[in-house]
Amino acid sequence: MKRSLIRVGVVGASGYSGLELLKLLLGHPKVQIVGLFGNSSAGKKIDEVHPSLRNVFSLDVQEFAAAALRGIDVLFVALPSGQAMPVVPEALAVGTRVIDLGGDFRLSDSAIYQQYYGHEHTAAEYLPQAVYGLTEWNCTAIKNARLVANPGCYPTSILLALLPLVKAELLNVSSVAITSYSGTSGAGKLVAEKMMFFEVNESVRAYKVGSHQHIPEIGQYLKTFGGVDVSFSFVPHLLPVSRGIYTTIHAPLKNGVGEREVATTFQSSYASSRFVRMVAPDVPEMKNVEHTNFCDIGFSVEGNRLVLLSTIDNLGKGAAGQAVQNMNVMFDLPQSEGLMPCYQR
Amino acid sequence: MKRSLIRVGVVGASGYSGLELLKLLLGHPKVQIVGLFGNSSAGKKIDEVHPSLRNVFSLDVQEFAAAALRGIDVLFVALPSGQAMPVVPEALAVGTRVIDLGGDFRLSDSAIYQQYYGHEHTAAEYLPQAVYGLTEWNCTAIKNARLVANPGCYPTSILLALLPLVKAELLNVSSVAITSYSGTSGAGKLVAEKMMFFEVNESVRAYKVGSHQHIPEIGQYLKTFGGVDVSFSFVPHLLPVSRGIYTTIHAPLKNGVGEREVATTFQSSYASSRFVRMVAPDVPEMKNVEHTNFCDIGFSVEGNRLVLLSTIDNLGKGAAGQAVQNMNVMFDLPQSEGLMPCYQR
Amino acid sequence: MKRSLIRVGVVGASGYSGLELLKLLLGHPKVQIVGLFGNSSAGKKIDEVHPSLRNVFSLDVQEFAAAALRGIDVLFVALPSGQAMPVVPEALAVGTRVIDLGGDFRLSDSAIYQQYYGHEHTAAEYLPQAVYGLTEWNCTAIKNARLVANPGCYPTSILLALLPLVKAELLNVSSVAITSYSGTSGAGKLVAEKMMFFEVNESVRAYKVGSHQHIPEIGQYLKTFGGVDVSFSFVPHLLPVSRGIYTTIHAPLKNGVGEREVATTFQSSYASSRFVRMVAPDVPEMKNVEHTNFCDIGFSVEGNRLVLLSTIDNLGKGAAGQAVQNMNVMFDLPQSEGLMPCYQR
Amino acid sequence: MKRSLIRVGVVGASGYSGLELLKLLLGHPKVQIVGLFGNSSAGKKIDEVHPSLRNVFSLDVQEFAAAALRGIDVLFVALPSGQAMPVVPEALAVGTRVIDLGGDFRLSDSAIYQQYYGHEHTAAEYLPQAVYGLTEWNCTAIKNARLVANPGCYPTSILLALLPLVKAELLNVSSVAITSYSGTSGAGKLVAEKMMFFEVNESVRAYKVGSHQHIPEIGQYLKTFGGVDVSFSFVPHLLPVSRGIYTTIHAPLKNGVGEREVATTFQSSYASSRFVRMVAPDVPEMKNVEHTNFCDIGFSVEGNRLVLLSTIDNLGKGAAGQAVQNMNVMFDLPQSEGLMPCYQR
Repeated sequence: MKRSLIRVGVVGASGYSGLELLKLLLGHPKVQIVGLFGNSSAGKKIDEVHPSLRNVFSLDVQEFAAAALRGIDVLFVALPSGQAMPVVPEALAVGTRVIDLGGDFRLSDSAIYQQYYGHEHTAAEYLPQAVYGLTEWNCTAIKNARLVANPGCYPTSILLALLPLVKAELLNVSSVAITSYSGTSGAGKLVAEKMMFFEVNESVRAYKVGSHQHIPEIGQYLKTFGGVDVSFSFVPHLLPVSRGIYTTIHAPLKNGVGEREVATTFQSSYASSRFVRMVAPDVPEMKNVEHTNFCDIGFSVEGNRLVLLSTIDNLGKGAAGQAVQNMNVMFDLPQSEGLMPCYQR
Repeated sequence: MKRSLIRVGVVGASGYSGLELLKLLLGHPKVQIVGLFGNSSAGKKIDEVHPSLRNVFSLDVQEFAAAALRGIDVLFVALPSGQAMPVVPEALAVGTRVIDLGGDFRLSDSAIYQQYYGHEHTAAEYLPQAVYGLTEWNCTAIKNARLVANPGCYPTSILLALLPLVKAELLNVSSVAITSYSGTSGAGKLVAEKMMFFEVNESVRAYKVGSHQHIPEIGQYLKTFGGVDVSFSFVPHLLPVSRGIYTTIHAPLKNGVGEREVATTFQSSYASSRFVRMVAPDVPEMKNVEHTNFCDIGFSVEGNRLVLLSTIDNLGKGAAGQAVQNMNVMFDLPQSEGLMPCYQR
Repeated sequence: MKRSLIRVGVVGASGYSGLELLKLLLGHPKVQIVGLFGNSSAGKKIDEVHPSLRNVFSLDVQEFAAAALRGIDVLFVALPSGQAMPVVPEALAVGTRVIDLGGDFRLSDSAIYQQYYGHEHTAAEYLPQAVYGLTEWNCTAIKNARLVANPGCYPTSILLALLPLVKAELLNVSSVAITSYSGTSGAGKLVAEKMMFFEVNESVRAYKVGSHQHIPEIGQYLKTFGGVDVSFSFVPHLLPVSRGIYTTIHAPLKNGVGEREVATTFQSSYASSRFVRMVAPDVPEMKNVEHTNFCDIGFSVEGNRLVLLSTIDNLGKGAAGQAVQNMNVMFDLPQSEGLMPCYQR
Repeated sequence: MKRSLIRVGVVGASGYSGLELLKLLLGHPKVQIVGLFGNSSAGKKIDEVHPSLRNVFSLDVQEFAAAALRGIDVLFVALPSGQAMPVVPEALAVGTRVIDLGGDFRLSDSAIYQQYYGHEHTAAEYLPQAVYGLTEWNCTAIKNARLVANPGCYPTSILLALLPLVKAELLNVSSVAITSYSGTSGAGKLVAEKMMFFEVNESVRAYKVGSHQHIPEIGQYLKTFGGVDVSFSFVPHLLPVSRGIYTTIHAPLKNGVGEREVATTFQSSYASSRFVRMVAPDVPEMKNVEHTNFCDIGFSVEGNRLVLLSTIDNLGKGAAGQAVQNMNVMFDLPQSEGLMPCYQR
């Protein structure tokens, strides 16, 4: 158990997940931010990059270099996909533990990575040691991990909802239909015509149908933690809001399985998981999880048809929140440290 | 064929569908609005009720009375569910043709109506003569109809997407998963805490899961026009936008059915339906149909898994637009009259 | 008086004003669109550029060339500032009348143009013949104009509100404070980080304080139509909405001037101007003018302090709507032709 | 100096300011929430009233009674105007210090209170002891106050911007023009047609022009802290966002006063006020203060015309944030305790 402050570094603090991470780390009683690294922001102070941090926190952003990692206990990497692959090995080489918020180390098969991410994997030898950071399902492995692959936002909302039922073999896993909607921060700081305010506002659209890079991740971890191959269809959509993910899953239950089994299965899976709130019979509302690390799950059963509803903040439990939750596990702290505004007994 | 202007009346012009209807009728070259009826607005001028109509159109809103329908060729009824039942029979009795935008005359079984709408049906004897106003699928019956039951918004987006494939027997109809998102105007002028700006903004939530009144409507007309009973799951959600519906359907295709069959089936179904635009391989975008009577449909096939995407403006093709389209059919006008901003050849 | 259709062309139909223009022209009973010109879109069909036009209208977009203007009665130019200067002279040279929606021909002083627009004026010799298209105030000159400089969006909302009172000498013109808020379509199709959805959503910011290019335009035309130099301060802001402008003006009244004089002055100025709606004592609401050519004006007097409120749709009366209104004047049509959804008497 | 935890109670925790207050107090290291009081929520647990608090905090909401205040050091009152007047005296009577977030104890003249708030003042005898909680300007008095009248949201954004210049006599105070825009949470949990999502979305409107209850508050405290009567015009507007206020002030500078004097005046006023950030030459952006206790101020000088820009989160520095900041002062804690996510040195 660490008694002193955890000394952390962040690579890619100029993005949206990066800023979210900074805000959480600044409010964490056991953390000291000692290094900020970036390319486009190198040489600037972080409160120049993020004016919302003026009078809150200021630190120079340096160019990433392994030498600068001396004394850093854990490095958060919040870079666009592909850009973590040069950075992560260097950090591991100097003994720094790493939590990667991107997708570079989530998939075990580098050929599939290339197929979905569109570029070659250049650090495949590190894949075996990467530990998937879905905290509620992989806590023991995360604890001793040197490299945590923080889950994607959509997968987090989907796996948390599906895994208990898949593992308990309550579902007919041959046709699971997943429809997810996400606020725009999920796309990162992408400057493109399609992401301009006028193009997104008051509109909705599906995208990357059948080709989203989270598809193999969902499949791999349904198998890893749920025990079976699940045949599913996943359709992501863009929502005209800043943050939040809402996932709706239609899945057939096996014969004889009803609401009671579903309810008790969720209960036993998440009884001690403070960040997963089972809200049924209420319906989850996205605004109840915004700016938090919570995942709210609801469900409804009609005959043998099950509907699962799951909502998270894509920047919270879908990225920075879960990353800090994993850091807490790695450093023997209560999972909720720095993630819960609560000094009450 | 009518050579003179169609004389129309509108009941419930103070609601959102009512205003949308007025705007369309005012821009229709073959229509003359001769009567406006309402309860809460009775005695006021319509441009007092709707300030956006100032300097555009003004007419007194009267209390509804069958006597006032003399000379009116067709009456549009845009009232909350339950409230059309007293009005429609009176209008039919004096020979006025009726287009009802509400749900009171869509379901053939009044017991199911009561189950889903929460109140008794008091005009069930008129159900047999009601003609469902899904124009692209019921044109011939609409033509001579005295009473058109204009479809619900969600059903319109869903039926237009599913019917061609159901009818052509391309789908495995045992597990169709339907996820729909709608802007707030779909709820009508409902003054309730849950519909206040702060409660809806930047949030999303599912509602009436398993109990939405459009469920029996979807099922009945999939059977009527598609020929089979379809087992489906329907989950509606509230979107923080003013108008628009986006429907995503996951459905398994029958063995041997692929993209080609799907494409050609849609082509033959809608080749002559100007208001249904097949946009594949593009993905439909809600803003491309806003303020129009179009339904944009896209699809994607992977293995035997089909994803259907369908978007309409809930006030357009989902209500007032389709109502005017039906009026055109009933009075032998081109379907696009007054619905297409086009004087070009 | 033109008996046949007005043959129109549009340069820059791929932008937001351009699309708005197309939609209006397509719904105009006396117009035929015969030519579409652009650079980035040249070679494509317009419904490829704007999918919302599928099944509505299709025409090839050509590269602009004076030779292609043969037979075109009026050319609408909807290009970013600076880009109209090469195009307009060519069109005038072949006898085509021009309505320029951009700012290149509004300012009489090309040195001031350069100061505010940031580039040199290359067609200053055409400035004397340019007629400012503020329809309610320059109708006679517009009628015979060969070149109409369509006003900027902010100036339209500001001039319509201020001119009656300035001209009637009711204001103390030494300190007029103008605060305007505009939806994002006012910025055009600007692909920049600051205009991405996440940067604009749920936020507001002032911009170009003291340097907005509409400042000299407001001043010049307050003088031209109002008769005096007005000393004013103008601060524009970005609103997280798609369209609309809301302007709030604080101005001191001269001694002895009260609400009555203000009301009657507006009444006499705009009694026959259908598109200016004096809504006092109601307060103008932006949504009442969205998708219309209306300008709603309200006011409030307290002591000698006057508050003016003015709202338009920046794409409507602030651009395309006013352009069509001017075309109507130039071709002897009722000003409301194609701009009012009204066939009623 | 208090060494133990501050025991706090909150009346009106079911409203928007109430929830914001709870979230801040829950994250405050020196606070223990021991009592929650309300009428409509009495008997429920607070996480039933606010589902976002599930798994964070739960406590029964009691009906307010002075007897229940035993042991409470400070009571926050977050009730609609008029409703604090019965509660506050009872709390004071039992020795509890009070921070009232409403407007009942801000105005020194109860006749003016009645004129603007629309009902009689029933506890006017307590007005003399009420201390205005504009922390940066009244710190000393707040320290020993038994009753703090927390400022209104608009006044906070306006006073912080104007006071330094008014006090330093740099402004011509005969015509200050104030235009403010606020997100909807400023209106509280008002269930009315005008506040429904469809009525607010994509629209903007001024309201309570000349009659807003913050008008006398602005005037009184410009006099109290600035030293002179300021003649101003104030126009509030509703913004289609959840939270945030943006204020734009046009004011003439006295002869000879320029940018330098303005800059140095602000500097000396706020050098030690961590929560007021002078951002010039940058322009303030509302999103940079959302969910914080910051007030960002910018300015621009042209000739003798000054433009002031000021933005706060109406629920943060405009209500709950400033209330907690005042509590810190009252209990000898650093002003930023619990308001700054910062454990860094």
